[in-house]
Amino acid sequence: MNASHTSAELDRWSDHWLAIVEDALSRWISPQAPAGLGVAMRYAVLDGGKRLRPLLVLAAREAMAHGMADAALDEAALRAACAVELIHAYSLVHDDMPCMDNDVLRRGKPTVHVQFGEAQALLAGDALQALAFEFLTPAPSNIPDRVQARLCRLLATSAGHAGMAGGQAIDLASVGVALTEDQLRQMHRLKTGALLEASVMMGAACGDASPQAWTGLQRYGQALGLAFQVVDDILDVTADSITLGKTAGKDAANDKPTYVSLLGLAEATTYAQSLLGEALDALHSTGLTHTHMLAALAQRVVNRTT
Amino acid sequence: MNASHTSAELDRWSDHWLAIVEDALSRWISPQAPAGLGVAMRYAVLDGGKRLRPLLVLAAREAMAHGMADAALDEAALRAACAVELIHAYSLVHDDMPCMDNDVLRRGKPTVHVQFGEAQALLAGDALQALAFEFLTPAPSNIPDRVQARLCRLLATSAGHAGMAGGQAIDLASVGVALTEDQLRQMHRLKTGALLEASVMMGAACGDASPQAWTGLQRYGQALGLAFQVVDDILDVTADSITLGKTAGKDAANDKPTYVSLLGLAEATTYAQSLLGEALDALHSTGLTHTHMLAALAQRVVNRTT
Repeated sequence: MNASHTSAELDRWSDHWLAIVEDALSRWISPQAPAGLGVAMRYAVLDGGKRLRPLLVLAAREAMAHGMADAALDEAALRAACAVELIHAYSLVHDDMPCMDNDVLRRGKPTVHVQFGEAQALLAGDALQALAFEFLTPAPSNIPDRVQARLCRLLATSAGHAGMAGGQAIDLASVGVALTEDQLRQMHRLKTGALLEASVMMGAACGDASPQAWTGLQRYGQALGLAFQVVDDILDVTADSITLGKTAGKDAANDKPTYVSLLGLAEATTYAQSLLGEALDALHSTGLTHTHMLAALAQRVVNRTT
Repeated sequence: MNASHTSAELDRWSDHWLAIVEDALSRWISPQAPAGLGVAMRYAVLDGGKRLRPLLVLAAREAMAHGMADAALDEAALRAACAVELIHAYSLVHDDMPCMDNDVLRRGKPTVHVQFGEAQALLAGDALQALAFEFLTPAPSNIPDRVQARLCRLLATSAGHAGMAGGQAIDLASVGVALTEDQLRQMHRLKTGALLEASVMMGAACGDASPQAWTGLQRYGQALGLAFQVVDDILDVTADSITLGKTAGKDAANDKPTYVSLLGLAEATTYAQSLLGEALDALHSTGLTHTHMLAALAQRVVNRTT
């Protein structure tokens, strides 16, 4: 398939799904939550972000569905897409707080604690994490209990100490420390990789993946997760704050180890391309036929400029 | 049943279960989590607390089991007991942080952010919330998927914006504000009541509760949750910091509305006793026969001195 053809197709596909995801998020995050909490939660999630994780869930669901609709599993995938975005959004809210990265700008807007105060930001993040698990376990629902439980397990594991939170702890401990490439990879595998991989696997869990498909999608998710971070490190050096919608050059300013500081810009760029190749190989190994949106998402991740 | 007889029986019963809960928590919260995160998580949870919520789960499970063991449902109840304690523990870690209550003493020890720094405290709380949902969805497991999904739903709902986190947002907004008794009750129903009620209902979900039993246990959990808070407010005035293991007199110092400031000490005490009566009536209405530990726990909550 021609690359620019794929890219245009991805744009159409993602426009379609993003409208559905935005609508679901807006309906499912109630502004009614007490004492302004709902307003802060909505501010943290709505009208922003590339929604890469939801799109990965939905593209993986599409790969499993082989073009056949199943209302309950389709709903499970949409709920999983929104749930994983809530986890991502809450992690940004907490990560931006003064005791962490102390960032004031996110997606071109004041960060949540700047807008609503630190205490409300802390609570909004906590409430978003809980809401993610509510999204996955609606009642009454036709989503099979097996799928609900599995989605909760995948999300909890990837968000917690052995995933995102664990990676953030390593990040915290690594400021000003010279990491090896292995240590840097381990940090990012947890900090950003785990949730990206889980997005793919949650989509796969909304269907009956063969062991071969499951393993291939896992390899795809891992390669994509790492590629995402390498490109993030490259953009932190090459892009400006306005383009990024967040403060650029922060990693160097904070003396944080990055792929660019470790490998240099040219080699980091080559590495990102080789990870893209790995991701596409892994997709091929699944034996699945409807993987072209997953392939296009991997290309978008590596070739993005913001 | 004689009250002192019940109390001695509860002591034996809770000693038995507390040893099992402590052992499970210690095995299931790994010290291996990266960069000191596991150490901070264990510090936040182990060796402290009255474990009221786990005991409520286990007593409710016992009421459902009618003395008949079921290995999978017994394991589900133990996991639920530990999961609800993780949510409670994470809420204390975040609540103690400088941007919230700024407390330095908890269960007679320095609070988590004092011991490990604010960033690590934030992450440890976040990771504990995720771990709670991991506890509920083990794999492989004989726990029915239906039970796993239901436990996740109950816990997520009670922890989030319509439960604990929502109550904390009201609390935050109510400093120095004159609340009516209805508003105060609504705040506590969410802030502490929702998780206490969910503890009871999670135990009930580890069995087949009739609608009558479910409704009765819910009423029991609501009355107990409110009684717990009324007694908390009384103890904040009448006990000292060393007995409480946390800073006493804080609510008055922070100009927070309490049942004592609203009703006066004598009437607050009468109110707590009438809520105990409501809780015991509700148990009676369940039609269940093995509810004496739930009854004894309600008595302990209302008659406690710490």
